[in-house]
Amino acid sequence: MKKICVVIGSRANYSSVKSAMLAIKRHPDLKLMVVAAASAVLDRYGSVVNLMEKDGFAITERLHFLLEGETPTTMAKSTGIGLIELSSAFERLKPDVVITVGDRFETMATTLAAAYMNIPIAHTMGGEVTGTIDESIRHAVTKFSHIHFPASRDAAERIEKLGEPTDTIFRVGCPRIDLVAEILQDRPSTLTEKLFELGVGDKINLGHPFVLVSQHPVTTEYGAGEHQIWATLSAVKRTGMQAIVLWPNADAGADDIARGIRKWREQGLAENMHFFKNLPIDIYVQLMAHTKCLVGNSSSGIREGAYIGTPVVNIGSRQNARERGSNVLDANYDENEIYRAIVTQSAKGRGRSEDIYGDGAAGEKIANVLAKIGSVKLQKTITY
Amino acid sequence: MKKICVVIGSRANYSSVKSAMLAIKRHPDLKLMVVAAASAVLDRYGSVVNLMEKDGFAITERLHFLLEGETPTTMAKSTGIGLIELSSAFERLKPDVVITVGDRFETMATTLAAAYMNIPIAHTMGGEVTGTIDESIRHAVTKFSHIHFPASRDAAERIEKLGEPTDTIFRVGCPRIDLVAEILQDRPSTLTEKLFELGVGDKINLGHPFVLVSQHPVTTEYGAGEHQIWATLSAVKRTGMQAIVLWPNADAGADDIARGIRKWREQGLAENMHFFKNLPIDIYVQLMAHTKCLVGNSSSGIREGAYIGTPVVNIGSRQNARERGSNVLDANYDENEIYRAIVTQSAKGRGRSEDIYGDGAAGEKIANVLAKIGSVKLQKTITY
Amino acid sequence: MKKICVVIGSRANYSSVKSAMLAIKRHPDLKLMVVAAASAVLDRYGSVVNLMEKDGFAITERLHFLLEGETPTTMAKSTGIGLIELSSAFERLKPDVVITVGDRFETMATTLAAAYMNIPIAHTMGGEVTGTIDESIRHAVTKFSHIHFPASRDAAERIEKLGEPTDTIFRVGCPRIDLVAEILQDRPSTLTEKLFELGVGDKINLGHPFVLVSQHPVTTEYGAGEHQIWATLSAVKRTGMQAIVLWPNADAGADDIARGIRKWREQGLAENMHFFKNLPIDIYVQLMAHTKCLVGNSSSGIREGAYIGTPVVNIGSRQNARERGSNVLDANYDENEIYRAIVTQSAKGRGRSEDIYGDGAAGEKIANVLAKIGSVKLQKTITY
Amino acid sequence: MKKICVVIGSRANYSSVKSAMLAIKRHPDLKLMVVAAASAVLDRYGSVVNLMEKDGFAITERLHFLLEGETPTTMAKSTGIGLIELSSAFERLKPDVVITVGDRFETMATTLAAAYMNIPIAHTMGGEVTGTIDESIRHAVTKFSHIHFPASRDAAERIEKLGEPTDTIFRVGCPRIDLVAEILQDRPSTLTEKLFELGVGDKINLGHPFVLVSQHPVTTEYGAGEHQIWATLSAVKRTGMQAIVLWPNADAGADDIARGIRKWREQGLAENMHFFKNLPIDIYVQLMAHTKCLVGNSSSGIREGAYIGTPVVNIGSRQNARERGSNVLDANYDENEIYRAIVTQSAKGRGRSEDIYGDGAAGEKIANVLAKIGSVKLQKTITY
Repeated sequence: MKKICVVIGSRANYSSVKSAMLAIKRHPDLKLMVVAAASAVLDRYGSVVNLMEKDGFAITERLHFLLEGETPTTMAKSTGIGLIELSSAFERLKPDVVITVGDRFETMATTLAAAYMNIPIAHTMGGEVTGTIDESIRHAVTKFSHIHFPASRDAAERIEKLGEPTDTIFRVGCPRIDLVAEILQDRPSTLTEKLFELGVGDKINLGHPFVLVSQHPVTTEYGAGEHQIWATLSAVKRTGMQAIVLWPNADAGADDIARGIRKWREQGLAENMHFFKNLPIDIYVQLMAHTKCLVGNSSSGIREGAYIGTPVVNIGSRQNARERGSNVLDANYDENEIYRAIVTQSAKGRGRSEDIYGDGAAGEKIANVLAKIGSVKLQKTITY
Repeated sequence: MKKICVVIGSRANYSSVKSAMLAIKRHPDLKLMVVAAASAVLDRYGSVVNLMEKDGFAITERLHFLLEGETPTTMAKSTGIGLIELSSAFERLKPDVVITVGDRFETMATTLAAAYMNIPIAHTMGGEVTGTIDESIRHAVTKFSHIHFPASRDAAERIEKLGEPTDTIFRVGCPRIDLVAEILQDRPSTLTEKLFELGVGDKINLGHPFVLVSQHPVTTEYGAGEHQIWATLSAVKRTGMQAIVLWPNADAGADDIARGIRKWREQGLAENMHFFKNLPIDIYVQLMAHTKCLVGNSSSGIREGAYIGTPVVNIGSRQNARERGSNVLDANYDENEIYRAIVTQSAKGRGRSEDIYGDGAAGEKIANVLAKIGSVKLQKTITY
Repeated sequence: MKKICVVIGSRANYSSVKSAMLAIKRHPDLKLMVVAAASAVLDRYGSVVNLMEKDGFAITERLHFLLEGETPTTMAKSTGIGLIELSSAFERLKPDVVITVGDRFETMATTLAAAYMNIPIAHTMGGEVTGTIDESIRHAVTKFSHIHFPASRDAAERIEKLGEPTDTIFRVGCPRIDLVAEILQDRPSTLTEKLFELGVGDKINLGHPFVLVSQHPVTTEYGAGEHQIWATLSAVKRTGMQAIVLWPNADAGADDIARGIRKWREQGLAENMHFFKNLPIDIYVQLMAHTKCLVGNSSSGIREGAYIGTPVVNIGSRQNARERGSNVLDANYDENEIYRAIVTQSAKGRGRSEDIYGDGAAGEKIANVLAKIGSVKLQKTITY
Repeated sequence: MKKICVVIGSRANYSSVKSAMLAIKRHPDLKLMVVAAASAVLDRYGSVVNLMEKDGFAITERLHFLLEGETPTTMAKSTGIGLIELSSAFERLKPDVVITVGDRFETMATTLAAAYMNIPIAHTMGGEVTGTIDESIRHAVTKFSHIHFPASRDAAERIEKLGEPTDTIFRVGCPRIDLVAEILQDRPSTLTEKLFELGVGDKINLGHPFVLVSQHPVTTEYGAGEHQIWATLSAVKRTGMQAIVLWPNADAGADDIARGIRKWREQGLAENMHFFKNLPIDIYVQLMAHTKCLVGNSSSGIREGAYIGTPVVNIGSRQNARERGSNVLDANYDENEIYRAIVTQSAKGRGRSEDIYGDGAAGEKIANVLAKIGSVKLQKTITY
């Protein structure tokens, strides 16, 4: 049995690879090991560990390596502590393949630890273009990885251009879309107004139009977050629609955005707005299916949005150059521009599903590749 | 004045960037900061710090982050500790540009720390092909770097293919060649038999033919080092020539090679052989100019060897696919094959100088680019 | 000029040594260096750094070493990261004396780093008895320290019994009392109901009776915090008085107490209660002077309480065996017992000032000792 | 079954607790877990791990946390990395008791990690007086420990004076003496001149008088090591006797002593001297039984020397105030003084056995206490 070790460092990580984890767990020739780490082991970020256990996954190791602070310096240090902890974990677990997800600091730590320790690395969601430090991390991880699972066709092409051998690149689609497909097709809607007993702020009437806001810090624009979220909230307020606002993730600069949100609330501006630290993925997807418009810079607007058909106003540079469907309209960090874009997008209604980031079977494909693939050539060489 | 911070993590690092450091120090618009780290601050590796001070450089910071062990796991952990220490150092020093050299674990730590902290990164010796974990590190570092200083033309082309903008790539040649040029042209030869009062083993008669051996561990072949060095030493012994043997560097697996050398000596096989932990670069270059043949897997055979015209027997995979001149003959880890290659090469004598890795003015060119370049675009995007 | 380096790791640390810092800063023969670290550099804990700067202190270094999680494991790891960061800081700063405050994890890290580096250590607030891991840390720090500044007479005696030379023990009183004295004597009361625009929950009418609650986790009772705070809040509610509730500090187990407080609020039980993450020390002292009763396990009840005359209900084991005045009544983690104790204490009114923990001039005395003391014998030997 | 976890950080650690490990392993109610760490996992220090495996112990975890450098700063940092690694190990292993040995930096790391994680700590060899940073560490570890196993009567008394409850102190003797007793009574002497095929230097004729030298760095005299060892070697040379010289341990300052030894050899002064990095304990004990005189500052002279009756010249401050028998003569770091002391001691011959540090059954006693002891009170309070 091949031992496949997945490192989950955040809620986003988990959603991005959950369907592959399920398929690996089910596969007769594979054995799944789950290392929960960084914000995934913290109550403060909504205890992803509990969620995984509820979903039937046994947690093999729990590693703490998120340094408090959320500044550029602490992210570098967290990566360092992660390397120390993950190398010990890999030494004990001796996995045959390590799966590293996406482009976050824990992705980098996972990749470096495995690379030094001569463990084959499989990378999901490589080859995409976003335009922040995530972009550098993502391509760097590609240069360390032995098996590539890009989500989209242009991502696969980009990995090849980066000098990776064609026979190591498997365009499987994005595993997040697997979850979206399942939620939209199989489950009865769990959207009720009981939802608003969690979080803080006013209740939202789901029968009336509402905007969904999800805006994260841009690490290369450190310090600007408070101003950025303020422009967005002002524009949303001007539309007169209700709004559901999500807290930022744990990247450098999150404190700025959080401060902006807190001030907004303290100044009494948050009428008809509700605020959540986290939302279960199924609730989030259903909100995406029902919102008039998703506003912010979350990748979900580009990726899940394409599949769901959600109208999206994408703000600023965070998703720059990510391949996008007809559902997305871009805007700068400018209240007027954002306001106009929301008005335009809200008028369109939910669009048709586009297949850019996968067809809903990525997890299954990943497990099959891992089971079939022979011994991996550890010593990488660029193809040109 | 632009503050240019160079991180020196080993003796090899220092030789690879010394001429650029001299040029930066002399440049009226630049201010040099030197961070000495990892093996560069350790007596055990020949105190590179003292050497730098003797060369007139003030050491701005000294950082310890080399974990004992030299296993794959400890190299991952050393990278982690390096990230913790370097991020603190950069926070204090606030450099305008960080120069990161080559492809070692401290190169990776330097790069990641600077990248998270939004400090522009200049990378020397990127774009080359070698075929070990160094290769992955080198290309990953390229994907984080904002200014590229490749040594050779095909390295420059490779960086462009990796998706870096043409106007960020400056083919300057290798700064190590600057040192070689200076040593060969200006200085009277310091090669005397007093040399052999350092190190251990028999004295070498420099008037008679001698072989130079420099063989390092290959991290992806961890555990094989003892056998590998044994084959080399056996082949050298069979030629009947005298030999000067260098100790391996601090990469994972160094203990294996060191053990092989110790056993060789303890079994009384080391007649007419002399062993050095380290050699000053000028001695080493002069030995390269006088040896019948350089044997092993050191990059110096390929790079400095091309400029000097040294006959080289290059063993195994460590320098795979590195661009090479007519002075190099490859061999596998096989006593017979190595023996025959030494015989062939020793018969040739020193060859003509080839200009593949630079013309001796790389340092000057680097300083000029750093002085002239305007503000660097921190947010990187792949060109395709 | 003797360089005196103070390491401030939390808001409590700062209040505990601020008057000594002021006196050192003013002293002509001393130079103050301030290292801000751990929770003192974090927004989440109320940015103690900003507070110090507002108070006129220049911050020499800022160190991040608080790992997220607040479990026993992460406190051990935070101590470890602290050692790594503090040793680098001390190497740069080369202080003549390091002041380490009290008994927290950063106190331990500070002490170990200085001890290994042969820097004389001055310890404030040693020799006290509390009965948690703080107790072990405090006495261990005493065994590493060269100069002792205990707050009370029995603390001084205990340090001597621990085998420390009498001439290294200076009973100066507690510097926190210096601040209390100043606040109560000099400043006009800043207590107004504007206070309740910060924090969350109902407004408190300061003209009517109110209880002050400050309850922290007990690290050796990890996991019990939620139940413990619930008993306290229930007892307080039963008295019918208004309540001001403070968030727990960052020790292991803080999440449990925080969860208890959150649930209490979410279940709608928090009528007439107001909740603060932090309070400025002057506000806190004035609240102590006006509250009917301080409830919980904060050391402030025992120490500042004695000086102010605040009636205190001290719950559970955290302050076990700390020398206490006539203002304190103890209770177990039991709703009924706590309820009865609050009723008894609230009936007493503010009592007379007791001089157990100092007379308000501790800071001045500390600075004078540090200035006068000759060279410290680094090599410690137990006296028996 | 109670899980008893021993952390072994060095060869000295292992010898100091091996007989207790054997007794724990044999005991029906105890389960032994062995964590090998720091220099115990390094080839460079003689691979203690291999030795333990040869002795029949299974290694539960291997942890790397020794930072290269052996300066005061790196020892602080190694302690920090040790805390990070050990806390992860304890979290996985969940031992019922952790045994921490003596007074080294890994002892401190082990103790702090266990203390934060609420694991009962048993400490061997506490309560002794030595007069270096070891002394502070040892007493600090006592203040964190729940069960005390001092070696000598005055050590037991000292622990009690430090405020530890009498019923937690078990005077069992030193487990190292158990090994010595066994070696001297049961085994045929393995001392032959084949011994000198290991190490470097001249062969020693064991039939003629020889001196044994074992000198370690004193951390509070950092920088003086080279001069100190030089005085010793000069004095030894002057006696005209042969000498067996041991390499220093890994404490801060070891590089100084090592440099001194290297220079001594390089200057051709090492006639009739042989040098070992390490010696198996049985060889060492037999050398102690046959040497004319043991010279240096090793604790073995004081402790094992008392039991064996070895004449000892104890140099400098490292063993200051350690309880000693009639076999020891003290000397300062002065060639003349050391020379005269060696002459005096060498004339005496081996003396009678003294029972200060144990009767040879310490290991058995430790296992029995651990098996019988009920639940340990985690929350420590000083007795006065």
